Amino acid sequence: MDISALQQIRYGYTPKLPVSLSRSVDDIAVETGAATEAVADKEKIKGIFKLTYGKPLITFTKGKNEQLHQELKVGVILSGGQAPGGHNVIAGLYDGLKKGNPNSILYGFLDGPIGLVENKTKILSGDIIDAYRNTGGFDIIGSGRTKIEKPQQFAASLETAKQLGLNAIVVIGGDDSNTNAALLAEYFLAQGSDIQVIGCPKTIDGDLKNEYIETSFGFDTACKTYSELVGNLMRDANSAKKYWHFIKLMGRSASHIALECALQTQPNICLISEEIETKQHSLDTVVDIICDSILKRAGNNDNFGIVLIPEGLVEFIPEIKNLIQELNNAIADDEQGFAKIDSFDTQLFWLNSRITEDSYKILQSLPADIGRQFLMDRDPHGNVQVSRIETEKLLIGMVEKRLRALKAENAYKGKFNALAHFFGYEGRCAFPSNFDADYCYALGYSAFVLIASGLTGYLSSVRNLTAPANEWIAGGVPLTMMMNIERRHGEEKPVIKKALVALDGAPFKTFKSKRATWAVDTCFRVPGAIQYFGPPEVCDQPTVTLKLEKRNEE
Amino acid sequence: MDISALQQIRYGYTPKLPVSLSRSVDDIAVETGAATEAVADKEKIKGIFKLTYGKPLITFTKGKNEQLHQELKVGVILSGGQAPGGHNVIAGLYDGLKKGNPNSILYGFLDGPIGLVENKTKILSGDIIDAYRNTGGFDIIGSGRTKIEKPQQFAASLETAKQLGLNAIVVIGGDDSNTNAALLAEYFLAQGSDIQVIGCPKTIDGDLKNEYIETSFGFDTACKTYSELVGNLMRDANSAKKYWHFIKLMGRSASHIALECALQTQPNICLISEEIETKQHSLDTVVDIICDSILKRAGNNDNFGIVLIPEGLVEFIPEIKNLIQELNNAIADDEQGFAKIDSFDTQLFWLNSRITEDSYKILQSLPADIGRQFLMDRDPHGNVQVSRIETEKLLIGMVEKRLRALKAENAYKGKFNALAHFFGYEGRCAFPSNFDADYCYALGYSAFVLIASGLTGYLSSVRNLTAPANEWIAGGVPLTMMMNIERRHGEEKPVIKKALVALDGAPFKTFKSKRATWAVDTCFRVPGAIQYFGPPEVCDQPTVTLKLEKRNEE
Repeated sequence: MDISALQQIRYGYTPKLPVSLSRSVDDIAVETGAATEAVADKEKIKGIFKLTYGKPLITFTKGKNEQLHQELKVGVILSGGQAPGGHNVIAGLYDGLKKGNPNSILYGFLDGPIGLVENKTKILSGDIIDAYRNTGGFDIIGSGRTKIEKPQQFAASLETAKQLGLNAIVVIGGDDSNTNAALLAEYFLAQGSDIQVIGCPKTIDGDLKNEYIETSFGFDTACKTYSELVGNLMRDANSAKKYWHFIKLMGRSASHIALECALQTQPNICLISEEIETKQHSLDTVVDIICDSILKRAGNNDNFGIVLIPEGLVEFIPEIKNLIQELNNAIADDEQGFAKIDSFDTQLFWLNSRITEDSYKILQSLPADIGRQFLMDRDPHGNVQVSRIETEKLLIGMVEKRLRALKAENAYKGKFNALAHFFGYEGRCAFPSNFDADYCYALGYSAFVLIASGLTGYLSSVRNLTAPANEWIAGGVPLTMMMNIERRHGEEKPVIKKALVALDGAPFKTFKSKRATWAVDTCFRVPGAIQYFGPPEVCDQPTVTLKLEKRNEE
Repeated sequence: MDISALQQIRYGYTPKLPVSLSRSVDDIAVETGAATEAVADKEKIKGIFKLTYGKPLITFTKGKNEQLHQELKVGVILSGGQAPGGHNVIAGLYDGLKKGNPNSILYGFLDGPIGLVENKTKILSGDIIDAYRNTGGFDIIGSGRTKIEKPQQFAASLETAKQLGLNAIVVIGGDDSNTNAALLAEYFLAQGSDIQVIGCPKTIDGDLKNEYIETSFGFDTACKTYSELVGNLMRDANSAKKYWHFIKLMGRSASHIALECALQTQPNICLISEEIETKQHSLDTVVDIICDSILKRAGNNDNFGIVLIPEGLVEFIPEIKNLIQELNNAIADDEQGFAKIDSFDTQLFWLNSRITEDSYKILQSLPADIGRQFLMDRDPHGNVQVSRIETEKLLIGMVEKRLRALKAENAYKGKFNALAHFFGYEGRCAFPSNFDADYCYALGYSAFVLIASGLTGYLSSVRNLTAPANEWIAGGVPLTMMMNIERRHGEEKPVIKKALVALDGAPFKTFKSKRATWAVDTCFRVPGAIQYFGPPEVCDQPTVTLKLEKRNEE
């Protein structure tokens, strides 16, 4: 890859570190808190994690820690979807290792966890690290979605680590990847190996957070990138005054990204999947909510607006969730029969006797293009690919239908022209904001201290994130502490509890208190592009979500 | 609208002015060059513009110009699609007027040219101007696409201008809007009125340029915004290593935006409509070009990449252009008959005997969803809405088909997963880059000097744009000088000549010299978000297109 002017300049950015980590490595000691418990299903979690359960919280403090000068060999993995700042986690880890001992070596596992299983690595030299400082993406070593689940995979992982002579493995990933890290830490100990495993909280989706992990990295940059685009569309809408923009935002099941973008930009409508599920809203009700705003705004002669839609929405609308389930079952029951049909109308006919009447009606009521997406685009297991369903177009189609009906009854006199957008991949690899650049570097540096201090089964943790960076609190949180038991594919599994949008949390409550006004008036706010230089109120702000959550705690 | 932190800070940005305009208004004199001629069809243009033809070029110099202290009333119009910087044109015009005489008044015509025809205005006070300095969008007074064509519209425009007691009207618009400005200038004089008309060169598409207009405003910011997103997708592609991103970019007929984004980001493929038309490439050939890159990269195990597609592409592929024409004709011949058909298959059957066999084959060969777009989504005149055709999906579909065939012949062993994107509206209303903020302010200020100097039928002009702003050359170019005669809807019309991508120009030649390498290797460049503060190599660069064109001239 070639180097842009911004990239060249960003190489020179020095991430800010918390005081506890900016000391000389001679002076960073470990402070051990009380023993911990899992968030739920304590006995079951304890039974699975016999050797790593119940460890204490860790923070860093001023004091002697001879171990930090050890010569170490560490391997690092980027796991799952990209998030801005991953390169800085690696740079922080690298810088820590080299400050501790210049002979220490950092290996990068190539293309995700598969690199560990198959022993595909590269040694990360200073030159390589320098070429990726403060850049977005995971291209330094690539990423991947392999899950280490099978006994052979665990055994192969241990074998690789032993062959390389590793002291520790750092897994940079989301909830699933860190669940994997916890299992790996336990497995290594159970096999009599002292190879340590440390996780780092990554995901733009923002759903890996709890009392001790205030936010996952990448969420800040991704939300700011999407908010830039949403804000630009708002100005466009308010200038041309003729389009409604329906914008789907990445974020998988959780609506954190949509909510944060709403708090940053103040759209007319932002749907929150978690609320829709809780209230058991039907598709009709969702269309009601949108049309209510359109009608009121049309009454003010404002035939334009902005609707934000979380990526996972369709799975949270009960009747659509049912429809998807029924389609998956019906097709799984006679995969070959279904595969032979090549027209949509014949597929519909085929399904008529195979799914419930209610679901069949829903399927028929969808705009034809979207109905096709439910049937045509299936994953290798034959399941509907929910992320490929163009929810933004589905809603436009349903809204158009409703408005036609209202117009026929003389209940609506406005004009409705809608444009559909999906923002996702554009935000996963942006240059990390100063916040993410700093946060990630501190997470990586903190991971080094945890490793050098002989700890395993921890998630690197940096807290107090709404304060200036020097006041941030670095340390480690036992991975088992964040776990509970969930059913996955019919089996009970220990997993890190996913944090969906809390309807009693400050971010949602703030949004809720304002949305009635936003639905009618034009309260748009245009954040503009992420700025890396310039005044701190523009360059060094955490997300609104984080600020509201922290304010609420205090 | 609410105010973001960036917006608040950007209010304080002081646009840089050329030396000739940063002098005290007592010291700005007009220098008159030689008389000019139209670029083509001189006699016809002269016949239409009897009173405004052949005027001299204008530049500003140091010297006395008593007229600049006149009390003036000026009306300003934002015409056509939004472009970042429009607000700064108005701010520059306002500041000039008020420096000349604090009693001068600036009216904004609301929602485009219709505001002039229907006398809908608001007085632009200092407070209003201040709330929009250095912001994107046209929301200060709104924009619109009304063309002033009919005699009644011209008469109504004059009537409005007289009622308001205007000295001049400033039209901020693209080629069509400025053609309109020229006609209005001529009309006013012909009616014995001395109300002046001055244009300003606006369009993100970049197709309003010539020897004296180096670039239209907004092109810089829009291209940088799209390049930010393209660059982010490149990092994402190079991290995940599993997607080909097909990205359509706004820009109407001209491929300037796609070309500039290619020069900024170095994608594997960038299609240039002008080249495809010149070479009379078929759709198959376009698919060849893309597949050639995919195959070579697959050979290197790089099953990912980036394809840039100009918005207007389909109209430049001869066989698709024919198809569209034949569809428009066939449906126009029996609009009611066609309207009665409600299934795609029946539409195809209906068309079979009404379009040529060649066109029918093309229509059948298109991916079904896209074929539908050719038939379903028609404008009020029954024509195919070319801008609504998802060319990016069309190409993905055609490429998939080709790759399946190659795979069956064992000629291709890679994996192909493609994602479609369209970037357009996101870039039209971004906060103007420093370049556009400065350029627009200078254009507006220059418009004031032209008005106060009693000139009409001019386009405000600021040249030498790759030099630092103080060395820019401000002045005016006679609108008639840029005109030629073209056939529009069967009639000969005087129009400003549209500048498409020149295949012998430096930007295209530079691209051409590099694209073979880019097609195979991963040469991606990630420009990142537009920066407004920070080092000049990041914040104050004009487009690559402009730099290459200027370097070529020298």
